[in-house]
Amino acid sequence: MTANFAPGPSQLYFTVPDHARVAFRDGITSLGHRTREFEKIFQSATEGLKELLGVPSNFHIFFASSATEIWERSIQNLVDEKPFHFVNGAFSNRFYEIGKLLGKNSTKVEVAFGHGFDEKVNVPADVEMIGITHNETSTGVSLSLDFINHFRKTNPNSLIVVDAVSSLPYPEFDYSKIDSIFFSVQKGFGLPAGLGVWVVNDRCMAKAEELISKGKGVGTYHSLPFYLQNAKKHQTPETPNVLGIYLLSKVVEDFLRKGIQAIRKETEYKAAILYQVLEKHEVLSPFVIEKQSQSKTVIVAQCGDRTDRIYEHLKSIGLHAGDGYGVLKKIQLRFANFPAHSKEQFEALVDSIERFR
Amino acid sequence: MTANFAPGPSQLYFTVPDHARVAFRDGITSLGHRTREFEKIFQSATEGLKELLGVPSNFHIFFASSATEIWERSIQNLVDEKPFHFVNGAFSNRFYEIGKLLGKNSTKVEVAFGHGFDEKVNVPADVEMIGITHNETSTGVSLSLDFINHFRKTNPNSLIVVDAVSSLPYPEFDYSKIDSIFFSVQKGFGLPAGLGVWVVNDRCMAKAEELISKGKGVGTYHSLPFYLQNAKKHQTPETPNVLGIYLLSKVVEDFLRKGIQAIRKETEYKAAILYQVLEKHEVLSPFVIEKQSQSKTVIVAQCGDRTDRIYEHLKSIGLHAGDGYGVLKKIQLRFANFPAHSKEQFEALVDSIERFR
Repeated sequence: MTANFAPGPSQLYFTVPDHARVAFRDGITSLGHRTREFEKIFQSATEGLKELLGVPSNFHIFFASSATEIWERSIQNLVDEKPFHFVNGAFSNRFYEIGKLLGKNSTKVEVAFGHGFDEKVNVPADVEMIGITHNETSTGVSLSLDFINHFRKTNPNSLIVVDAVSSLPYPEFDYSKIDSIFFSVQKGFGLPAGLGVWVVNDRCMAKAEELISKGKGVGTYHSLPFYLQNAKKHQTPETPNVLGIYLLSKVVEDFLRKGIQAIRKETEYKAAILYQVLEKHEVLSPFVIEKQSQSKTVIVAQCGDRTDRIYEHLKSIGLHAGDGYGVLKKIQLRFANFPAHSKEQFEALVDSIERFR
Repeated sequence: MTANFAPGPSQLYFTVPDHARVAFRDGITSLGHRTREFEKIFQSATEGLKELLGVPSNFHIFFASSATEIWERSIQNLVDEKPFHFVNGAFSNRFYEIGKLLGKNSTKVEVAFGHGFDEKVNVPADVEMIGITHNETSTGVSLSLDFINHFRKTNPNSLIVVDAVSSLPYPEFDYSKIDSIFFSVQKGFGLPAGLGVWVVNDRCMAKAEELISKGKGVGTYHSLPFYLQNAKKHQTPETPNVLGIYLLSKVVEDFLRKGIQAIRKETEYKAAILYQVLEKHEVLSPFVIEKQSQSKTVIVAQCGDRTDRIYEHLKSIGLHAGDGYGVLKKIQLRFANFPAHSKEQFEALVDSIERFR
């Protein structure tokens, strides 16, 4: 048994090497992005994603090169002056920083690493965008869907933008309560890195058009209007990562065949057995204490001065834990729980953590 | 014999499928971009490229997702107000348009499709950047190296930025006469699409720093200073297309083994036999008439009302011509002449064009 639990780039979904072989065999790797064949791949990927994630028809799906790019494009296209961010880790903070680099009047509410937010936080009524990181990959904190959903009522004029980089396809978002989500494919979709997926509704499109009408810049080839103009033809503005989009379309087909409910149940089972062994363990514990904030998809173990030893113990039996993020590397390990990680791999992981003293 | 002469995405270099197989086998497709293994791949790709193309040490190599992105990042990082462009086709015009979308005071000199430029054109002394498309992929016009090189003298204060998307690795640029070049890998490097390569010197770095010191925006994660800060560690600012960078490093090794002079000679031989058959042909002719403007790497045939017939004739023997660009699709065919296209493929192409009446 070998497994790679790094939270991204992570283990490939087991079907991906075969899909890649077919892509090379059938010339997908040389396919022109203005051909009918490419349009079919684009359409299969976007329509498959809508079906898998339950995305309604007033949303559009566009391809970027990374979620980092989508942070930038979101601020460019959705904010004139005032973005607001919930920050509880390195990635949510970087989204906030991107706004400042773009010269915006960015504000944030910040809590300590490992924690979620109080629902009673007041978000100013005049912020144009509320940036929420559903799953903080650096610390394994996940925000509840109730938390995300309540902003439509408290801040009806703000666009609600959800970074779901390391949680999708697991969460079942209520798309009537959010305006945009995005993710990158090297996490929950088990694909090679190099593609970000950006889902936006018509309110986002209208905001970008409003900015343009005021003479504000919204970028160039990856502005929302230019994306949409091309997506209507099932095309991209530029020569994209064609292989990446093809592989995504194929994995989405596989996920649809398996069924999103089966994927969700398996995710919950695997998370439950890992949290259970960490809770009961003599020397390890979950880093995130509040149960409602414990991520199902990125599980962080507090390992203290045993970190290196448990890392090596797992490695000796083929199980590669992810390092803790940044300075937490010395005292934590992270375990991705994506569809690519099988029940058997998680059971082996849990067994060997249990045996560790 | 089968061959794909579309000018990009084009035919893969023959070693690429094997390199991809190894990448999937060895876990490159799940490799973290903050690991030592990734840093080695980054270093191998950038140092290999410098050796292959003869790029001096005062230049840096950064990775973007496409050449389209590099158009945008070039204007953002190198221009406050005034970019100047040489426009003689669809792609050089798009570079110009990107500047306008970014709110710059862009100017251009434009000639008809299929032509090069008069060296006596005066470029205003105060333009900050001169954008030159070395090889116009839409029309098969290549500008001479003498033309590119003379701006250092006439416009010493301007940054000279060369779009070499569909010509590298063939041309032997004089890097003391230019400040930046860029290309995308799905053309002359015979790789799957999804990666752009940006080469900049210290003058470009200084310009970006100057813009920042004036409080001007230069973008976020793909600004030149942020690129450099990461590249010093052989890393990228964001999770990149790791597989793409790995495959590039491997093809660069292959090109180095073959030798850049052998690649250049082969390119010239293949171009010569194709232009020769077009010149002598009863019904076809080269679209670009001026000999000094005829691209060696994208060769455009004027086919008139025979376009469909010759396309089908070639296709029937496994040779896929590239369509003419845009409205020229009805009357032209394009033939990429990249290192991936073998002498045997070109000889078969030339033979079957010769037999066509």
